Parts: sequence; structure tokens; C-alpha cells
Amino acid sequence: MTITVDAPPQLQRLKQALGVVADLRHTESVAGWDSRVFMPVRGAPARADVSATLGRLAHEQFVSDDVGELLEELRPYEENLDYDSDDASLIRVTRRDWERNRRVPSDLVGEMWRAAALGVAAWDQAKAVSDYSLLAPHLERQLELRHRYVECFPPTDEKYDVLLEDYEPGMTAAQVAAIFDDVKAATLPLIEAAPEIDDSFLSGDFDIAAQEEACRRILAVFGFDEAGWRLDETPHPFEANPGVGDIRLTTHYRGDDLHSLFSTMHEFGHGVYEWGVDTALARTPLETGTSSAMHESQSRTWENLVGRSRAFWRFFYPTMRELFPQRLDGVDAQAFYRAVNRVRRTAIRIDSDEVTYNLHIILRFELERDLLDGRLAVADVPAAWNAATREYLGVDPVEDAHGVLQDMHWGAGLVGYFPTYSLGNVLSVQIWERARAEFDDLDAQMERGEFGELREWLREHVYRHGRKFTPEELIERVTGRPIDAGPYVRYLQEKLSTL
Amino acid sequence: MTITVDAPPQLQRLKQALGVVADLRHTESVAGWDSRVFMPVRGAPARADVSATLGRLAHEQFVSDDVGELLEELRPYEENLDYDSDDASLIRVTRRDWERNRRVPSDLVGEMWRAAALGVAAWDQAKAVSDYSLLAPHLERQLELRHRYVECFPPTDEKYDVLLEDYEPGMTAAQVAAIFDDVKAATLPLIEAAPEIDDSFLSGDFDIAAQEEACRRILAVFGFDEAGWRLDETPHPFEANPGVGDIRLTTHYRGDDLHSLFSTMHEFGHGVYEWGVDTALARTPLETGTSSAMHESQSRTWENLVGRSRAFWRFFYPTMRELFPQRLDGVDAQAFYRAVNRVRRTAIRIDSDEVTYNLHIILRFELERDLLDGRLAVADVPAAWNAATREYLGVDPVEDAHGVLQDMHWGAGLVGYFPTYSLGNVLSVQIWERARAEFDDLDAQMERGEFGELREWLREHVYRHGRKFTPEELIERVTGRPIDAGPYVRYLQEKLSTL
Repeated sequence: MTITVDAPPQLQRLKQALGVVADLRHTESVAGWDSRVFMPVRGAPARADVSATLGRLAHEQFVSDDVGELLEELRPYEENLDYDSDDASLIRVTRRDWERNRRVPSDLVGEMWRAAALGVAAWDQAKAVSDYSLLAPHLERQLELRHRYVECFPPTDEKYDVLLEDYEPGMTAAQVAAIFDDVKAATLPLIEAAPEIDDSFLSGDFDIAAQEEACRRILAVFGFDEAGWRLDETPHPFEANPGVGDIRLTTHYRGDDLHSLFSTMHEFGHGVYEWGVDTALARTPLETGTSSAMHESQSRTWENLVGRSRAFWRFFYPTMRELFPQRLDGVDAQAFYRAVNRVRRTAIRIDSDEVTYNLHIILRFELERDLLDGRLAVADVPAAWNAATREYLGVDPVEDAHGVLQDMHWGAGLVGYFPTYSLGNVLSVQIWERARAEFDDLDAQMERGEFGELREWLREHVYRHGRKFTPEELIERVTGRPIDAGPYVRYLQEKLSTL
Repeated sequence: MTITVDAPPQLQRLKQALGVVADLRHTESVAGWDSRVFMPVRGAPARADVSATLGRLAHEQFVSDDVGELLEELRPYEENLDYDSDDASLIRVTRRDWERNRRVPSDLVGEMWRAAALGVAAWDQAKAVSDYSLLAPHLERQLELRHRYVECFPPTDEKYDVLLEDYEPGMTAAQVAAIFDDVKAATLPLIEAAPEIDDSFLSGDFDIAAQEEACRRILAVFGFDEAGWRLDETPHPFEANPGVGDIRLTTHYRGDDLHSLFSTMHEFGHGVYEWGVDTALARTPLETGTSSAMHESQSRTWENLVGRSRAFWRFFYPTMRELFPQRLDGVDAQAFYRAVNRVRRTAIRIDSDEVTYNLHIILRFELERDLLDGRLAVADVPAAWNAATREYLGVDPVEDAHGVLQDMHWGAGLVGYFPTYSLGNVLSVQIWERARAEFDDLDAQMERGEFGELREWLREHVYRHGRKFTPEELIERVTGRPIDAGPYVRYLQEKLSTL
């Protein structure tokens, strides 16, 4: 029996205060999107001021005494509600956020936003000329800010845990390391045993307009809708959601391969998660995905579990033949399927395959733990990077631009974020297995180009909840089990056996 | 002798507070630009929340007691400085802004921003289907908000004066009407006596890629620089400047005429004004152009005084022949020059010429004065619009989309803004005459495609000052005289005599 309790006036006041914070976050989202898609380079310093101000103001407004008092006054109301209800979840999650954020001075938050904007701009330059020394001082600054941030919190087993908590609540570095050990142990033999596959036809001249057309046709069947979504080009694809009804994907077209298709499917996965959050949660802290790994599980679902599946290519390969008649002349769907799944040792994360991908992440996770704990100096990162790349992947980066400078994350201050990519892989298969168990004609649907039922199932079970549940709670609700690398490892093993 | 006084610590604190307000204004600028260039339509309601929050917060931060106290404490410092100095100007102009803004509740400001975002979105829809009834309730709301706004201020001769003051400080509706009487008296006989000119070659198929190339070549010689400027397409061109080093022009390409070239030159004029403001004034209330009319004087300078001049087309016409060889076959530079200056009676403001343009503005000015004073009801605007168009221009709008719905301004709540367009025309020629007097080879420079000296002269005399001086002060400094329609009227008369 559900007891209905009238919401006290404090709830409306809380929602108003949170709405302002959400508006500032949405603004940061559109300004950040713009800075990476369209902003002229000379606009970067002014935009860094904007980021610092928005970040600081949003924090100040959120951690105000007013919000704290409203949360206290709402305790009796919360206790009379179902745990799962929107209002109880709003109060519970907001209180958790408030208590955590309240520990951090707003000025430090502003400085972190500023450093992120300046660091990304510096990384852009550093990568363009393959000169790590342009990034190094920003990396020093990012580490200094992270140390100040960590000091705001009670001691943890290691400093890394504090940073990880912001991206993957409830997870520790030691837990990550244990999961990664399982993944690594299963991955290395798979790489050794991977079949030789001819993917030479995936390199060469691929018309960019035809690539864009392919991306748009894929998005159309997945559920992209012009009235509420955009697709733009950026050097480094990402997804942004500056408010309800406004989902922005970016992709990157290279003239000599088909990378853009997978990048587009990946970002669609992020977009469809945000799109699927119940609009009743809009302008509250619940309006977004529950964690970075859960988000990544969905980008990986659409990129890999759908986008690198045999069923998908049975459906879409004829379109590819139509769009690239010369390039794909004499290549059949099975050959194409095998090629886009070829295990490849490369120094570049985004060029890797489902199996080797995780080694790229493990490498970054280990280096950033060492950096944060002072076992590795900023100056020594390129050498350590190259050594680890050789050890894990058996290859040498040709230059820093394609080695230590390949990712923007550290320039942006994202330390503790990388592991969520592989955790996302792990979660994606756990959820996927549940979906397959629910409707056993999933492959047949995909072969017919039907993705609506899958999308709706994911919306019902994952997306609509936003941040109502922690990632731990959500994976338990969906699968009945905690995070576990087993299904993912078995998926990789089975997949390789089909190639 | 200039006495040097050390700046008191309050100045730095004032600049910090004003920097935050500027950051919020820059954020609004990028969010507003985005909403008109790239935002998916379904994003409009969330963006209206963002606008309301940013507008309210920027206002709150600006009108704070802190800022007021700092301004008081800085009086002795200000009094020891040259009037023209950056610091004295900052304190003086900020105090004027603060006293004015302080009268208005921040919540009302937020509501005005929200209504602007919703009103523009509604106008977009209304125009698309030519249905005034979709705009009418928003227009009612805008008027209601303007009445509440006007009530925050001491009584003026008419309500319109309060609104006009925000766009054209120091100007009253009665002064505008007097200037417009002069313009109208001179304009009507010019239209009657205008020569018949064949401009039939300006209608027809003009390749849009070639138009864009023409626009980019013009911008390149004017001073556009990819590192700090952008050019995008929108249905309704405008310029935005979300911070130092970030100038954004938009234009609109129509497949059947060359309107885009003039629109691009127009927006360049707005952009180059913002670009030229001394960067020492960045992140303060002085960082932008001093008034809407002064801004428009510069867009008109680059669109008309440069862009419709014989000298410019002597320089650029060969490029046009190269880009549109078939369309312009058999048309010489003089014929082209005459055609782009043809006096034309049209119901559409942006299709009009330098002579008839002002009648479109006078019409709007008269209607909005009537609306604000209650002499005209929102429901009766279309009929009044059409009657005035017939009276002034001798033509009937075909449908509301090209009549009362042609401009976004009223939907955005911009009442009191239109007259600054014609005031800008007037000022543009006063400043232009001064420039011509300083370097008498201006035409020769333009014929050679050299615009650097003109641009630098304008920067030195107009742009760099930002808002340090009122429009009255600035026109006096540049020309030694107050605003005066005489030079503009003579310019039109002389120009028509050359056609």
C-alpha cells in the first residue's frame, strides 16, 4: 500500500533552487559544446573565465545554507515516501550531493573549471605539434588542484578513490583493479589467439559526404530525430545535452577509414541515455545518467553490441555497398563483419577493437594512479606511457601526438575518469544479456533494422531513472547481480570464436 | 599635467564583481547565438529557463549592495582622474548603469529574458506559417512586461523614453521624431524622383556556394580572421561577441539573389566595432559598443557607405564576374553599382534600399509608440501595419509573414530598438564625412581593395572607446557636432544623382 502524502512547500522551493543550478549546468554544457565545435581559437581565454564563473556560481548556489535547510526540513516527508519515488530519490540524491559538494570551496571549483578550459586548449595545441612540453605545466596544475580537492575529504585508502567517486559513486581504485585483473587475464590470451583477418579494404579513400550519409542513416533507424538532436563534426567526438529536447552528438570524419560510423553510434548511446531520462526529473540533479560507467555501458552497447554485431551488418551492409560501391566491391557482409572486429595491436585507443581496448584503459588507470600518488612525475609520463604501450600492446607510439597526447582527458583534469570506460564495457554486457533474455528475437529485429524495442527496453530499465539509483543499485535492479566481469569476458570469447 | 594616483583596492574588487557579470553576459551571448544558429527546436523551453536564470543572476550580481558601496568608496579616486581615463570612465559608466538597473527587480529582468526566448521561438513558428495569432499572446506579454519595467522609473514625457534609453542613452522619442521628420521630408521627394534602373539580373539563380565564397572574400579584405571570427548561416542574420577574440557573424543565403553579400558586410560592421574595443576594457561594462545607433552606424558604414559605393564595386566586381560568369554576363560594374542602389518600394525592410529603408523604420517606430501608449491594440497591429505600409511605401504586404511578422524584434521584446537603425544611418554619414576629410584617397584605397586604413581610423576614433563615452559625447568627439540628419540627407541626394 502506498501512502500518499502532500508535498510540503519546501519541496517546491528546493526544486526552484535546484532548477537554477541545472540552468547553470545547461549553460556550461552549451558553452562547452561550443568551445569544442565552433569557438574561434582566440576565444579560449574568455571562455575559460566563463567556465570558471559558471562552475563557481553553480557550486555556490547548490551548497547554500538554504538548500541544506530545505533538505533537513524535507526529512519527514522523505521518510514517508517509497524509496523509488521521484521525490524521495530527489531528496536522497540531492542530500548526498550536497554533503559531498559542501566540503569543497566554491573558489576551488571555479579554478578547476578554469583549468579545464585552459588545459583543453593547451592540449589542442600540444597535440597539433606533438609537443608534450606545452601540456606539462597544465598537467602539473591539474594535479595540484586535484590534491587540494582530495584534501577536502576524509582520508580514503588512496587519493584516487576521492576522484573516482565523482565519476563512479561507490567504487574504489582497489575494486577497479580487481575487475581489471580479471579482464586483463582473459584478454591477453584472446589477443594471442586472435585470427588473422584481412581488413585492408577498410583503409583507403572513403568519401566523407558518403560517410556522413551512412552515419545519418544509422542514426535515423536508431531513433535520432532532427527536432531534438544534432550531429556535428569535431576532432574529438563527444555528446552534450544542454537541456530537455536538445541532444548533441559529434563525430569525426577521416577521409581514409570508416571510423566515423562507430564514433557516431558510440555518441548516440550517450545521447539516447540522456534522451530517455524521465522529463519529470528535468532541472534537478537526477536529470542525467547515474554514473560515467553506466553512461559508457550505453555508448558501448550501441557502438559494439549493436554496431559491431553480425545482425546489424546483415541489415546495414547493403547500404554500405550502395554508398561506397567501388571501395567495397567484392567484399561481402561476413568479410566486412570480420574486418570491423579484427583484433589489432595499435598505440591509439580509439583505433583499437573490443578486445585490446581495455588494455589502453588499464594503462591509463595505472599511470594516473601513479601520478596522483607521486610515484610518477609529470616530466616522466611520456616515457612511462611508451613503455606501458610496448608492454601491453607490443607497439611503440610513433610520436607523442599519437601516444601520451592522444586523449584530452588529463588536460581537462579528468583524473579517475578513464577506468569508467572499461567498467562500461563490463556493465554493457551484463545489461545486454538481460535484454536478450527478455526478447529472444533481438538479432532478428536488428537484421530487419528495427531498434525501437531495444531502445524502449533500455529506456524502461535504465535510462528513465536518471540518477534516482546509484550505479550499484541500478545494475542490481536490472540484472539481479553486482558488477561482474564474467559476462563481458565470455562475450569476448564467444565473439572471437565467430570471426 | 596628469596626476597619477594609485588605484585603491576597491577598484580591483569592483573589477572582479563586474567580471562575473560580464562572464554571465558572455554566456548569454553564446547561448543566444546557439539558440538562433544551431539549437534543435525542442530545446527552446529549456533554453528559455537558461536565459531567465542567466539574466536574473547577472542582474542580481550587478545591482548588489557590494557594487554600490564600492562605487561610493571609489568617488574620491574617480574625482582625481582624467574624465577620459579608463578607470574614471569605468566608475562613471558603471555607476550610471548601477543606478538605473538597481530600480528594476531581478525577477522582472529574469522574466523579460524568459519572455524573449519564448517570444522569438513563437515568432519563428508564426512567421513560418504566416499566422499572427501565434505571436499575439507573446506580444501582449511583452507589452505587459514593458509596462512593469517602465513603472520602475520616474515619469518621463512618454513611456517610450524609458525603453529607448536602454538602447540609445540620452535620446527621447520626441527627439527621434524630429530627426525622422527631417529624414522623411527629404526622402519622399527622392523616392518620387528616383531613376528607373534595370536590376533584373540581380534576380535568378545565384549559386549559394559561390555566394559564400564572395562573402568570405569580402570579409577577408575587410579584416576577418579565422582565428577570432566565424561566419555561419541563420534565417535572420545577427552578430554576437561572447568574449574577447570571438566575433560571430551570421548571414543568410537565398538561392535567387545576392542579398547575402550586403547582410554579411552589415554584420561585419557590428563585428569590427566589438573587435576594435580596447581589450583593457574587457570583462567590464565598457567592453561593448556605446549604443545601438552607434553600433548600427558601423554596420551601415560597411554595408552601405563601403559596400554600396562605386569604389568598392570597381574593386570587387571582377570577382563577381569570376564567381557568377553566366549570371553577370554582359553586365558591367557601373550597371551592377546602379542595380544594387536601385530605389525600390517593397513591403520588406531587409529588401529595401538606402532611401526607402528609413520609411520602414519610421513605420515601426510610430506603431510601437502607439502600442506602448495603448492607442493601438495588439489585435489591430496587422491592419495598422498594412495601412502604414501602403501609405509610406505604396505597396501591400502579400501576407503577414512578409508584413507584420517579418521582423523578430517585437517577439523578442525589443520595443524602442527599431529607431536606432535609422539613427545609425544618420550617424554613419557624419562619421564617414570626418574620415573622408582625414584621408582624401579613401575612394582610391577602396578601389584597390584596401580597407585597413579606414578600419584603423574607425578603431582609433570610435571602436576602441567601447562605452567610455555616451553616444552624444562620442559623436561630438569624432565630428565636433551633435547628431544631425543633414549630412545623411545630402549623402542620399548626392548618391541618387550619381545613379
